[in-house]
Amino acid sequence: MDALLYWVGMAAVAVNALTGVLDSGRKQMDLIGALLVGVATALGGGTVRDLLLDRNVFWVVDQAYLITALGSGLLTFFIARTLPLPPRLFLIPDAIGLALFTVLGTQVALQWHAPWLVASLMGVTTGVVGGVLRDVLCNDVPLVFLKGELYATAAWIGALSMIALETAGVSSVLASWLAMGLILAIRLSAMHFSITLPAFRQK
Amino acid sequence: MDALLYWVGMAAVAVNALTGVLDSGRKQMDLIGALLVGVATALGGGTVRDLLLDRNVFWVVDQAYLITALGSGLLTFFIARTLPLPPRLFLIPDAIGLALFTVLGTQVALQWHAPWLVASLMGVTTGVVGGVLRDVLCNDVPLVFLKGELYATAAWIGALSMIALETAGVSSVLASWLAMGLILAIRLSAMHFSITLPAFRQK
Amino acid sequence: MDALLYWVGMAAVAVNALTGVLDSGRKQMDLIGALLVGVATALGGGTVRDLLLDRNVFWVVDQAYLITALGSGLLTFFIARTLPLPPRLFLIPDAIGLALFTVLGTQVALQWHAPWLVASLMGVTTGVVGGVLRDVLCNDVPLVFLKGELYATAAWIGALSMIALETAGVSSVLASWLAMGLILAIRLSAMHFSITLPAFRQK
Repeated sequence: MDALLYWVGMAAVAVNALTGVLDSGRKQMDLIGALLVGVATALGGGTVRDLLLDRNVFWVVDQAYLITALGSGLLTFFIARTLPLPPRLFLIPDAIGLALFTVLGTQVALQWHAPWLVASLMGVTTGVVGGVLRDVLCNDVPLVFLKGELYATAAWIGALSMIALETAGVSSVLASWLAMGLILAIRLSAMHFSITLPAFRQK
Repeated sequence: MDALLYWVGMAAVAVNALTGVLDSGRKQMDLIGALLVGVATALGGGTVRDLLLDRNVFWVVDQAYLITALGSGLLTFFIARTLPLPPRLFLIPDAIGLALFTVLGTQVALQWHAPWLVASLMGVTTGVVGGVLRDVLCNDVPLVFLKGELYATAAWIGALSMIALETAGVSSVLASWLAMGLILAIRLSAMHFSITLPAFRQK
Repeated sequence: MDALLYWVGMAAVAVNALTGVLDSGRKQMDLIGALLVGVATALGGGTVRDLLLDRNVFWVVDQAYLITALGSGLLTFFIARTLPLPPRLFLIPDAIGLALFTVLGTQVALQWHAPWLVASLMGVTTGVVGGVLRDVLCNDVPLVFLKGELYATAAWIGALSMIALETAGVSSVLASWLAMGLILAIRLSAMHFSITLPAFRQK
């Protein structure tokens, strides 16, 4: 299970680097700019979580994550120059990455004995802050904050459910899989049925 | 005194979450976006201070701060959808929050044995970085950097005065109250008399 | 050598504060805004490196860096109000600052036993993140990501070369000087001959 999670985590890093590089295409960045934005997108969420929990930053300890992010970013850069890569193609891998990052982040925070609400927010942080960094670096309002199809919401509901299940006595492994399934289910059905949260309308 | 400071600090967190949520209204954010911007505004300054000083992040240790920020943000979101909440209404609570955060942040840094100029900047950081984060996340130039009515300036003068008073032998409690009064007095009179700093005009 | 590096590092901090303040001139900031942006530009790169490596933040320990950044920023602010300071004037000092910050950052990371690729990225981080912060705070797309004349690229090649040289048995001092020369040579010839990386063109 741990080895499986490690490799799925690596895959999520690769997918996130890809979305970062694709996004940088709208801003006339060059190779190094695109790579750095890709790395920030892929590693940013876990980095902020580790800083807040005062843990060793995961990719500073194990540079396989950095190599994966750079390799995926490089590949994306050169493929996207010759082949059209519509971002919509990556919505499902991205949803899988969100589910995985959120569950991993919440587990890490729980093991660190963070209080439950903090732990759930650490999960959301791990899942979405990479994309927030990507949008800030590309000088956009972060997509995840705008009226959208249950992205951070799905992550938060999943993280809270996982914590509730574990508190109720469900094993950590089972609770993790259920939470990942829940995040995926909420996100994919929100995309399919265009479900959104109330938007802010200031009177 | 410590219990009082704790609760006033909590009130400042609530006011800052409110200004974050109100601000996000200009950017078509949805509920979760507004809440996350509110939390970043309320907790961002103290978080950056704690990271720089290598302390435990205050809201990770005591999640009452996070609950307060979320509760205040949620309330603001739903009230602002039905009632007009002109941001000007919150200028005075915001000035109180600035004074309190600055003094708290400076005290924390002094207890951590930071050098005096660093300690004063930690106070300013605690007071203004939440608002900087809010504006960066909303894709605006941070308000506090623009030509304005002595916001960061009031904080910095207050922090430096507090350190000077303590160095001169005044008790820490008295120096804190005097510094808070000074910050409030500078900020409120700057707003009343439209006092500003020289702006940058590049020749 | 160590004392020399200390003073050259201080000079690099002063130059970076200057570019931060000059840049803030395009955004109608006031004195305190310009100063804070200058400080963030000058100290931001090393700060992020220290946070990622879980070291004490360099300017919190030794406030001479903060005094230098503030002094340089203040001077720049008042000079730029009366004298035209074309940013092109500072391209060569800025390149020297880049070379120095990158080499210093890589050395710090190697001493901290960071893996080699991580160490090289820490060098790049120390060299360029100050400028990224400056542009994010001024609400621009970071210059270093845009199609440009080998800025981060020069830093990264220099950092990697230094690590390769040290692995091959060259002394740390010699490798540092060679790497600084290489970064300067790449950056200055890229500016002279308008050498750029491939830009991102999404098909």
